[in-house]
Amino acid sequence: MYISGVGRTKFGPLAESLPQLLYEAVSKALEDAGIGIEDLDAAYVANFCAGPFVGQLHLNSLVASLLPGTHIPIVRIETACASGASALFQAGLALGRFETVLVAGVEKMSNLQGPAVSTNIGMAGDAELDAPAGLTFPASYALITSSHMAEHGSTLDDLSLVSLKNHGNARLNPLAHFYHKRVTLDDINGSATVCSPLRLFDCSPISDGAAALIVSRERRSDRDVQVIASALATDTLSLAERDSVTSFTAARMAATQAYGQAGVGPKEIDVVEVHDCFTIMELIALEDLGFCRTGEGKDLVREGRTSRSGDIPTNVDGGLKADGHPIGASGIAQIFELVTQLRGEAGPRQVPGAVTGLAHNIGGVGGTCGVHILRKDN
Amino acid sequence: MYISGVGRTKFGPLAESLPQLLYEAVSKALEDAGIGIEDLDAAYVANFCAGPFVGQLHLNSLVASLLPGTHIPIVRIETACASGASALFQAGLALGRFETVLVAGVEKMSNLQGPAVSTNIGMAGDAELDAPAGLTFPASYALITSSHMAEHGSTLDDLSLVSLKNHGNARLNPLAHFYHKRVTLDDINGSATVCSPLRLFDCSPISDGAAALIVSRERRSDRDVQVIASALATDTLSLAERDSVTSFTAARMAATQAYGQAGVGPKEIDVVEVHDCFTIMELIALEDLGFCRTGEGKDLVREGRTSRSGDIPTNVDGGLKADGHPIGASGIAQIFELVTQLRGEAGPRQVPGAVTGLAHNIGGVGGTCGVHILRKDN
Repeated sequence: MYISGVGRTKFGPLAESLPQLLYEAVSKALEDAGIGIEDLDAAYVANFCAGPFVGQLHLNSLVASLLPGTHIPIVRIETACASGASALFQAGLALGRFETVLVAGVEKMSNLQGPAVSTNIGMAGDAELDAPAGLTFPASYALITSSHMAEHGSTLDDLSLVSLKNHGNARLNPLAHFYHKRVTLDDINGSATVCSPLRLFDCSPISDGAAALIVSRERRSDRDVQVIASALATDTLSLAERDSVTSFTAARMAATQAYGQAGVGPKEIDVVEVHDCFTIMELIALEDLGFCRTGEGKDLVREGRTSRSGDIPTNVDGGLKADGHPIGASGIAQIFELVTQLRGEAGPRQVPGAVTGLAHNIGGVGGTCGVHILRKDN
Repeated sequence: MYISGVGRTKFGPLAESLPQLLYEAVSKALEDAGIGIEDLDAAYVANFCAGPFVGQLHLNSLVASLLPGTHIPIVRIETACASGASALFQAGLALGRFETVLVAGVEKMSNLQGPAVSTNIGMAGDAELDAPAGLTFPASYALITSSHMAEHGSTLDDLSLVSLKNHGNARLNPLAHFYHKRVTLDDINGSATVCSPLRLFDCSPISDGAAALIVSRERRSDRDVQVIASALATDTLSLAERDSVTSFTAARMAATQAYGQAGVGPKEIDVVEVHDCFTIMELIALEDLGFCRTGEGKDLVREGRTSRSGDIPTNVDGGLKADGHPIGASGIAQIFELVTQLRGEAGPRQVPGAVTGLAHNIGGVGGTCGVHILRKDN
């Protein structure tokens, strides 16, 4: 499986409607691949919550409206915040029958404000077992953060470093939600508590945006990037049914499978995109992906190893924290960034000589995890 | 691709929660196939609207909760009312990598009443182009009905015959929403107008329910039924962007592809399940599927050819009209019925000697259509 084209919108509170966002991302991906809609054999659209947010389901047919006259098989994929990775995983399976597949992700969220936003996002958690206990999304991740601190000695200062790094990276990414925002440690440490111990700057924002990929069975050009591993794993919806809340079994299983498929290990990864919906998740992701031992994610951050110039450059686009988190698009945007990096087209945020990249995309509080490994052979 | 096991709940307003419905259908399908959860390699869950109806998205992780310890790849598929067919289509693609795949469909709708139900179902239509014009779902199908009447001379009496037949069939299906309800022509003709010309008995009901399939790459037993065609096609979301509202291009394309894959035509089909969300759709489906020429669906019904004893037995389980329409489960329930018929296990509603069956599952007002053809070789 190859990625032959990528495209995305800016992330953030945007004036464009959901169809307009999709149209922009899909057009850019087609243009980047140098193909037309008549070249597409099938498509997937990743979206979490357009029903509750904008009253629009059946997004696969909306994509058909954007590809007039093609009538190709199109399906909407929803696995909460991992919808993007799941759609790419499906595209990989579809390449058994099809040659060229579009994968688009989109979310329009900024039209709602206040409790409705939290209610909608909370639909990714267990409505029967967890929600009645007060486990909104920030509450769930606050629980996870407190537990990780207690078990492994991670501190608020570690989380501040994650936020600072990702906001700094976003300053080099013109498409990022917070591209224009200079963020200091004082801003982070002084920010309001959302759900103790999580502060505002520990939380990813509510973003609009779309991203799209053109996936090919065969290599189309020397700008193509190969997907050398595609793995998806699941876990119980309820946190109450897990053995641990500080490590995600689905992530560990997907990572193990992906490394096996690719024939590489964490040491061979040059650039990493992880699902930092809350800052604690960057530490847990690094642990689950095997970049360090359990509980030692904080050390990687303290030692600067996850910065752009470190040996494990992580979320160089700003991550969900600062690039933004338009949920259905986030997993696709991770692939957009890896492709851009591996092509050597990332401009001022380029990781020099990056050949192999990994993306880690989580749904809910770990009920789904997709891991993809990409490589650019020159 | 083979169907090795099928299971479903009763359809109707049920006391069970969405997870309970899923559990029952999945358990029955596993038992029917004679396998355990450890035999599953992947799963798909078809659901249209659990977010707006019961505040639960991320249903793939909910399915993982029902399959503890497996951590297999599971994805939610949503293509409005065609979610079931789309999930089976995906399972077919997934058999390139996996041997045994669970496909489950579910919807829980009876907990809401009144306008909220119509609002939620309306999310399958175009929120920007059609909804502001007042095109709720009943309104869209009323428009389609009026147009079909004007173009082809179909009458309310023809629609009454569709309703009467399907309600009669449901009286032989203990799992049907309206199993216990005797319906006469007077009931139908005297029923309240929902959206002129559609009357209450022209509309499928709001049902809860779940259905599940075990899909295998290789034949497991002599009770397996082979899927000899699996086709999915799409069209614009908005009715305003279509050339015709009395025939669905997506259905015609999916049917053409399916007949091509299977190497059979309409004359070889012994039993048919079509998407009669509104009675007019049974006529249009028969036309789109090539069982008659355009506009002649009414003649098939008038001549009794679609009854159980006719040469095109259609919706012998009662169809969406009388078996019920728990949206995400409906396309799966069609396959359940075909498998039951082709196995010769349909009891009093058995179509004698049925060998080949076809299922036609529509999303929205024709933005998606899946067609599957099944055959049981003895």
